[in-house]
Amino acid sequence: MSPPNEDNPFDLNETIHQRSRLGIMTVLSEAGEADFTFLKDSLDLTDGNLGRHLEVLARAGFISTRRGYDGRRSRSWVRLTTQGSTALQIEINALRTIINRADETS
Amino acid sequence: MSPPNEDNPFDLNETIHQRSRLGIMTVLSEAGEADFTFLKDSLDLTDGNLGRHLEVLARAGFISTRRGYDGRRSRSWVRLTTQGSTALQIEINALRTIINRADETS
Repeated sequence: MSPPNEDNPFDLNETIHQRSRLGIMTVLSEAGEADFTFLKDSLDLTDGNLGRHLEVLARAGFISTRRGYDGRRSRSWVRLTTQGSTALQIEINALRTIINRADETS
Repeated sequence: MSPPNEDNPFDLNETIHQRSRLGIMTVLSEAGEADFTFLKDSLDLTDGNLGRHLEVLARAGFISTRRGYDGRRSRSWVRLTTQGSTALQIEINALRTIINRADETS
């Protein structure tokens, strides 16, 4: 992961800045671990959309998936990796800088 | 512009959430009016990239452009419209909600 450019807070990592993925990452940081249905309902995403975004996040090493059973039903649980938590923290800090700049002018 | 979904702060307007356009809008809110070169330098964008993002923002009614001369050189100045200022404020408020949620869990 390239280090953020401190002179340019808008040099955000698109993998995590994209709105649905920012949502998934934030919900996971709150929930610790969440299943597919919980994420879908929390973020108003379709199965296909959620699946695609989880794939992007998994490929970046930001989330890990665990498969298991809830009674007879197969379920998938998702959680942030350490790398994912760090990436979210970097994004949140960049957003904080942007908000402070916007607040100073309003 | 559809009203933001208060239950889902991640239902962000992509026209303004995209990182370069969020940068352009924030710089314009700080600068009042800025020319093409100033925006390009502030945000590390190429001519082509900046041009495309300005087009998206103009089509959404978020910016207006004024052409004029600086000595003999033709220049373009860009500023936020009222609609653009409102859209930026909505985005900033949504980002604030997301940051507060992330802060509560870290």
